Formats: sequence, structure tokens, C-alpha cells
Amino acid sequence: MAAPLAPDERDAAVAGLIGWAVSADGKAIARTFKFGDFVEAFGFMAKVALAAEKIDHHPDWSNSYNRVEISLTSHDAGGVTRRDIDLAGTIDRLAGA
Amino acid sequence: MAAPLAPDERDAAVAGLIGWAVSADGKAIARTFKFGDFVEAFGFMAKVALAAEKIDHHPDWSNSYNRVEISLTSHDAGGVTRRDIDLAGTIDRLAGA
Repeated sequence: MAAPLAPDERDAAVAGLIGWAVSADGKAIARTFKFGDFVEAFGFMAKVALAAEKIDHHPDWSNSYNRVEISLTSHDAGGVTRRDIDLAGTIDRLAGA
Repeated sequence: MAAPLAPDERDAAVAGLIGWAVSADGKAIARTFKFGDFVEAFGFMAKVALAAEKIDHHPDWSNSYNRVEISLTSHDAGGVTRRDIDLAGTIDRLAGA
């Protein structure tokens, strides 16, 4: 099990992503995505689901029509690890941004 | 646009479903589903997504690993309509319960 990133490592890693922010408690990173409609939003979610299952690291997320909110944390480590940063980068590529 | 169901109609309709409850504000119905793992949970979500798109009525929902929380409301009507009850019944069938 990986240890959580130190706050400065975490913040530097998040600064290298697009549109992600550290949660108020510092234990997760989150980003909201907006699409043209539900089909586009759920199509994106399907891609993220396959990528997440492949690495056995899953998002906490919600969807309302064209909007997808994603929160990433490493529950076992109790904070943000390199796995969350890597998955966020993958998600950004899947979103095409 | 359908009008929201009257509270007594709404409550009677929800009583005919499995495990759904009316939200505190009376404007939505919600149910939580638990599955064996993420693959089962997202497989269920994919089925619900296709059914929702077909009738152009979409859930507000969240997922964390094997858990899916679904809330249904008719945003345009400002409350629970027959469409929500019908979609809830469809979702129950898709969940196999």
C-alpha cells in the first residue's frame, strides 16, 4: 500500500493536472466535467470505468445529465497517492482535455 | 410536461416499489443499490443509462466501488412524476430485485 503524498508533493502533482483541485480536508482531488448531453457524459464514464477497473483503482463519482463530478482518493492509504494522480491524468486524456 | 404527483399518490406509488424512499423535501425518490464489486455496479449503471436515454429521463446518481445511489426527480415539473415511478420500476427490474 502506498503512503499518501506529502502536502507539497500532492499540491505540485495536482498543479501538473488540468482543472483538478484538492478537497477541503486534503484527502482527495476532484474535478467536474461538463459534456453536451447525457450520452457524451455516460460515454466518458464508461471509458473511465474501464480504465479504473484495469488498474483496480476506482473513482467516487456522480452524474446528473451532462455533468460528471469525480473525486479520487486512496481509501486504504487515507489520502491522495501517486495512483490518484496517475488516474486523474488518465481521466483528463479520456476527456480529451 | 407532467405535473408532480400529489403527496398521497406519490407515497402510494412509492409503496409499490422495492426499497425506494421519498426524499426529505418530497421532491425526489431515492434508492441505494449494493453489488459484489465495481464491475457489477457499473454493469448495472450501463443498463440503467441505456434505459434512461431511451425514455429521455435521466437519474441523478453516484457510485463508489460496489455502491450506487440513485435519485429520481422530474426537474421540469419540480417534483416526482409518473415518469420517475416508471423509471424506478425499470431500474428495480434491471437490478434483478
